[in-house]
This record gives sequence, C-alpha cells and structure tokens, in this order.
Amino acid sequence: MAKKVVIIGGGDAGTYTLEAIFKKGAEALKQFDITLVKKEKGGSASICAVPLALQGVFDMKDVTEIEPPEAFIGHGIDYRTGTEVTGINLEDSAVSLNTGEKLKYEYLVIATGRKPRIPDIEGTALEGVCTMSTVEDGEKIEAAMNAPEAKNAVVIGGGPIGIQVAVAFSKKGLKTTVVMGHPTPLSSILDPDMGSIVHEKLVKDGLEFIVGKSVDSINGEGAKVRAVVVGGEKIPADIVVISRGMLPNTDLAEKAGIKIGETGGIVTDQFLHVNKGGRYLSNVYALGDCVEMIDAITLRPRLSLLASTVLVQAKVVVNDLLGGSYSLEPALSPAVATISNFQVGSVGITSATAERHGIEVISGKKEKPTKARFYHGRKSMAVKLLFDAYSERLIGAQIISEEMVADRIDGLYNAIRQDMTAKELSRMEKSFDPYISLHRDVMVDAVESAVEQFMKARGR
Amino acid sequence: MAKKVVIIGGGDAGTYTLEAIFKKGAEALKQFDITLVKKEKGGSASICAVPLALQGVFDMKDVTEIEPPEAFIGHGIDYRTGTEVTGINLEDSAVSLNTGEKLKYEYLVIATGRKPRIPDIEGTALEGVCTMSTVEDGEKIEAAMNAPEAKNAVVIGGGPIGIQVAVAFSKKGLKTTVVMGHPTPLSSILDPDMGSIVHEKLVKDGLEFIVGKSVDSINGEGAKVRAVVVGGEKIPADIVVISRGMLPNTDLAEKAGIKIGETGGIVTDQFLHVNKGGRYLSNVYALGDCVEMIDAITLRPRLSLLASTVLVQAKVVVNDLLGGSYSLEPALSPAVATISNFQVGSVGITSATAERHGIEVISGKKEKPTKARFYHGRKSMAVKLLFDAYSERLIGAQIISEEMVADRIDGLYNAIRQDMTAKELSRMEKSFDPYISLHRDVMVDAVESAVEQFMKARGR
Repeated sequence: MAKKVVIIGGGDAGTYTLEAIFKKGAEALKQFDITLVKKEKGGSASICAVPLALQGVFDMKDVTEIEPPEAFIGHGIDYRTGTEVTGINLEDSAVSLNTGEKLKYEYLVIATGRKPRIPDIEGTALEGVCTMSTVEDGEKIEAAMNAPEAKNAVVIGGGPIGIQVAVAFSKKGLKTTVVMGHPTPLSSILDPDMGSIVHEKLVKDGLEFIVGKSVDSINGEGAKVRAVVVGGEKIPADIVVISRGMLPNTDLAEKAGIKIGETGGIVTDQFLHVNKGGRYLSNVYALGDCVEMIDAITLRPRLSLLASTVLVQAKVVVNDLLGGSYSLEPALSPAVATISNFQVGSVGITSATAERHGIEVISGKKEKPTKARFYHGRKSMAVKLLFDAYSERLIGAQIISEEMVADRIDGLYNAIRQDMTAKELSRMEKSFDPYISLHRDVMVDAVESAVEQFMKARGR
Repeated sequence: MAKKVVIIGGGDAGTYTLEAIFKKGAEALKQFDITLVKKEKGGSASICAVPLALQGVFDMKDVTEIEPPEAFIGHGIDYRTGTEVTGINLEDSAVSLNTGEKLKYEYLVIATGRKPRIPDIEGTALEGVCTMSTVEDGEKIEAAMNAPEAKNAVVIGGGPIGIQVAVAFSKKGLKTTVVMGHPTPLSSILDPDMGSIVHEKLVKDGLEFIVGKSVDSINGEGAKVRAVVVGGEKIPADIVVISRGMLPNTDLAEKAGIKIGETGGIVTDQFLHVNKGGRYLSNVYALGDCVEMIDAITLRPRLSLLASTVLVQAKVVVNDLLGGSYSLEPALSPAVATISNFQVGSVGITSATAERHGIEVISGKKEKPTKARFYHGRKSMAVKLLFDAYSERLIGAQIISEEMVADRIDGLYNAIRQDMTAKELSRMEKSFDPYISLHRDVMVDAVESAVEQFMKARGR
C-alpha cells in the first residue's frame, strides 16, 4: 500500500521535497500517494530570482513559473493550487481545506514558508506599499515601478532583498532611498566594516541611504502612498517596499499545538520531525523557512531562510520517509546574493553574533585584485575571515567582489565545518592559473593577516 | 649579525622565498644577508602565463618580467642574474660560481627548478624544435609561430603545457597535430572519461591528435625541422614543441651528495631540509620543482611541479629560517589550467594513481549547466569525484568548465584534506543565488551519484 503523504505549501520547501522523491526513482515514488496543497495559483517559481528580474537581469515570466503544475501532476502528484489548508488535526491525522474537504494523511509535511515582517506603523496598507515575498509581490512591484508617474521609491530595510529591489528602482531611474535601522547594509550577514564597502558602492550607483533610523509612518493621499516619514522628515514616495526581514509562517502549526522555538520557527529534531507536548512525532515533518535550525557555531537556534538550507532538509525528510538514517547537521547557512554588478557572500557567524554569544574573535581582512597585474579587466575582492580567539578555528567568512564569491564561500564552508584553524588554512595549497587566479590570493593574505594577529596576541 | 643566505635559482621558488621574507617585514629582512644567483638575465617572470601569452591572452612582455632585478635589489638583495652556480660544497658551506667566485653561506636554499624531459630520438636539436620551460623558450616559440613560412606545427605530449601551446598554434591558423602516448589528453590530472571531454572540445577547435603512439624521429632539411615521424607516418612540421613533462633539475644537488628520491626529486623533511648520508641538514633547504613531495592520499613520494606548491613551501622555509615551527603537509596538489576557452581542474589522485596503489575507487560523475534555465549564456560543467571504496572518503576531484573551476577545486581541496565522506558531502549546504549558481548544483548531483553507488555496493 502506498503511504498517504500530505504536503502543505508549494514553495521551495514543498517543491524540493517532491524533487527529492522524484530523484529517488520510480520505485520510491510508487511507495507514496502524495497530495500537495498550495495557496498560490501556479507551479514552482524561483522567488530568489524575482528581485533580479526587477533589475532586468532575468525575464519575470521565466522565473515566476519554473515548472507548471502539470510537471508535478505528470509524476502522479495530486497537486492542488489555489487551495488553502485551514487546520491541522494531529489526533485525527487529517488536514482541513478551505473547500470544506478533510484530507487524511499517514505522513504530513509542513512547508508553510515565511511571511514579511511588517512594522507596526500607520500606512502599511496604502496602495503602492509592497512587500517582496511572493511572485504576486514581484509583479505588483514591477507594475508600480513601470508606471509613468513613478518617480520616487523608498525601501524600508537594508537586507539583501531590500537592497536588490532598491537597485532595481535605481536602475529604472527612480530616485531611491533606503531607510534602515543599522548603520550599514546587509548587517545580518556582513560586519559593519564589510557592510561599509557595500554602502559605498551603492551610494556611487546613486542610491540614497538614511541609516540608524526607523520609519515613523507612511503617508498617503487618499488610498495612494505619497511619502515616508523618518525622524520627522518627509521623503516623497510613489512606491514603498517594506523589506524588514521575514518571519516563519507558523500559524497552522501553532494552532495544532506544535512547538514553536525562541526564534519564532517550528522546532524539529535532526530528522525534521515536529514536537508536540515534549515528544517528536515520527510522521509529521516541517521544513523550509517555517522551521528553526541549530547554528553550527553557537549551537543555539537560528533562522536560516535560504533555498540552500531547504535543499538539504528535503533530502533528510525524504530519506526518513524511505526509512533511511540520514540526519540534519547544524546549519552554517552559506549565503550569497547578487546585489548589482557585484556579489556578497557570507558563511558562519558575524562579529555581532559572536559578541552576542560571548565568542571572542580575531579576524583577518584583505582587499586586493583577483588576478595578476597583466590580466586586463581584473576585479577587486574584499575578504574578511573570523576566527575564534581561543581555538583559532575559522567561524565566519565574508566576501564582496564582482566575481568568484559563491564558490569561495562554499570552499570556506568546508573549512568551517571541518574546524580548520588559521594555521591550517595558511598551509593550504591553492590552485593557480594566471588567467583565473592570483598566485598570492587575497584569501591567503587574509589568513596570513589573522595568523599575524594570533602571534601578536600570544606574544610571539 | 645578519645570517648569510644563498639562494640558487630565481624562478618561482627563489622569488617566492624572497617574497615570503619581505612579507615578514623589515625587521625580519634585516636578520639576513641574502644573495640570489640565477642563470637567467631578467627578474621574475610568470612562466605559467607564457603559453597563454602565446595564445594571445596576455602580452608576452607583461608576463616575462613581473619584477625587474631592481625590485629585489631595492630590498637589499644581492640579486645576481646571468650567473651560474657550478658546485655546492656542503663541507665548506660554500657554492662556486662560473665567475670563479666562491660564496660562503650559513643557510643555503636550493631552488634549481625543472628541466624538460627530452625523448631519446633523432632530431631534437634541429632548428624549430623547442621546449616550453623558460621565458626564452616562449620567445623562441613566438618567433617561430609568427614566421610567415610557419604552416604546420606538431606538439609532442598531451599535458597541460603542450595542449596550451597547441591551442596557441591552432588559434594562429597553423595546422596543429598533438602526438601523445596516452589515449586522452591531460592524463596526469584527468581520468580517461574526463580527458575524452577535453579531447572532443579540442578536436572541435581544429586540433588533430595522434594518440597511443610515440614519435620515431624528428626529420630535418639541413639544420631546419621539416617533419615528425610517428608510426612510420611523416607529419609535416615547421615547428615542433617537445612537451613530455618536466624533470626536477637536481644536477648540482646530486653532485653534492644530496639524496635524490625515487621520483627524481630532491628528498626533504617536512621543513624542506635536504638529506645527506641519512641525516637532514638543518641549514640547507630545497624547494620548488626540484624537490619531491609526499602525496596526501597515498603517502608515497610524488612530484608536484606547481606554483601553488612552491608558495606553501616558501612559507615553510622562511618560517624555519626565522626559527618558527611550521611544517609542510603532504601535498594534494590542486591544479587548474586554462586550456582554450575552458578550464580544467584536478585535486587529489586520479583513478590511474589509485589503481597503481591498490586503492579501490567509487566515483560520482555528472555534467550539467552551471546556472538556471532562465540565465542566458549559462555554461556546462563536468564533475567527477573519486571516493575510496572502503572509507567512503573523497580522494580526488576533476572539473571541466568554462567558468568556476579553480574555486571549486580549492573547495574540494578542503573536503579531501579534512577526510570528508560522500555522505558528509551530500549533507553540505551550498550557497545559492540564481544569478551565479544552480540550486541543485552539478557537484551535489555528482555526490548523490556516488552515494547511490555506495548504497548499491553495500546492498542497501
């Protein structure tokens, strides 16, 4: 008998779960009778690509429907779009739908995703005030920025998505202001000194920043937004995007009595089973943006709202469904984001997180070209490496460049995961070809700079 | 009193040793009185970049003099160009020069590099027959390929340098034939199935190959080369480049009684001290292409004639000179080479090396695009990962693509160095941004393919 599986949500978490099952082959797929229920109308989309589509890097249509519903239906999935789950009944092993139907399950996968964090101020419901979390949000922003009357844009929040959208506005010729509470952008993944580099680049690109301040209110004229008020100052705005981060969407889970953690995400064990009443339920999983992860450095709960996190989680869920023993590791959450013509990457923890957890940091930092002097068109790269002052282990890395950011972050991921120290890293051989690298690479220099500081600190 | 240091050789090994001392600062530099003796006339050059300069990627002048002698002299180095060391007297702690002078040393650094392996056949001394090992070689080849009568070129050997030079000839419009003993190119760093991908690309680019055969003789007309004879067949040739690999240049060391290993390189300990009569000499170092390394996978001696190897060795030598304790690790020799419009990378051992050492391999292989469907101009990437069948540890990796090869090889370097298994790698989080990566990356797929094979092999 095929096992009845119900998946709530068709974002990356639901989609990757299906894909992980498909990947196991037809035999594995036959073991399951799967229903996926999703609110949205279409198939799978690449939400991460939507801000870049706004920048004109991709075609919006290409990224908003990666796979149509038929692709999943063709695999035998009962793929229900435009349908909402209204409740989970763990005792009955059933979910209720807005259609009035009740779906029984043997296995339940909660993949309810995230929702934008909306500040508690006046005017957030005005026309022209958007968030950037769904395909619909993207289409709404696209229409607003292309409207002939659009002249001024304000983005509230200096995270990767907010900045990406701000760059899109600026490229479009709108006067764009970013309002953020932190003194530098991307503060969740970059230390202030690295954030400053991003800040400078964006100012050069024409963005304006109001930093260290929060928004008092959003003002309208009738139903339509007109301005954002910050510290008493009125900034004209025809579009406002609220991008103050995302929260796990846990309403259904919470109502069903499933344990929610201190970060606001669903608590799971390392097989992604949810917890109710102090017990992990072996047939109910949660994954994706709605769960909290354990951080690999601090071993404390954290959010990791990344597609890359979901990809690993989906493998763990599907392996567990198939009776394998394949557990989730604490997260290092390597992140990379294309900002405009440059990229920013980060893995492990930042100095701020280290400080919050009482971890003393020694860092190595360097900015230099990626290639030899004789290579025309070489780019610059800034690297900051954070080491635990006691163990000398690498615990975080941040990179800004026009190239090669992602793969370097992934390489440093392995170094952090494997507890490599500054000294070990400084003995690392690094592949060299004059067309693609520099013999004394910026990363080598950043490591050496940390080693020197360790030697100074140790009085050697 | 400053310590008297004599460095024999001004290639990468000598240069990087100087640079590693400069890097330690003026105080460290003051501790030494350094003489560097080199045969060549100029300052430091980027030999690795010369074949690419032949391809027109770089300007030959830019790569042949990276730093003029004055740059080193300015640091207080007695930098003697055009001078040859004729003998090392370890008992006297002195070297003899071709000028008749005798230089006493307290510390000696042997950095005599490599020399091309020349097959024992007729005609290797003919005009138009070149090797590709020095700046002079590069200039000679450049002149020969640009001569109006140059129509046909033959490259003997299918290693990275030979292939790079062959591509240069082909780009220049010469009919170019590569003659090699192995069935596929780059056999020292690529398995045959990966080498085949390179082979196909090069054939498409117009190169011709004669494989599995060696050259009988090189024929001339008067002093000038005219043809290469392979298996009785005469291939017309106006230029011939012999590129059958390099040998450590150990003549001076050998004559001085220094121990030479089974690979033909100078034997050293992990501080790069040479060995004489069963004892390591604490004041005589050798580094660079003239020494042999211990392979990190097989723990057997190997050659590692790479600039990246030298860079780490130079740090070890300079740390030892300064009284630090910083030892060399066995080598994984990550290598990357720009071939034409694509790059090839490799780290750890190949299947052939594994077989030679009785290591059973399970591999995962995958070729797919580097970016999402909606990214225009995405490239393909082929990845092969080799795992030890018993421990499931990663022991080798090979990548071919038009982009992102070097940093991925460096990331896998860490994975190999840290004994990561297929299962561990499959749980790896991988940074994702739709502009620079693919959510289910080719490396993830290659790992999964290996995991599946392990499961099959284990009967699971």
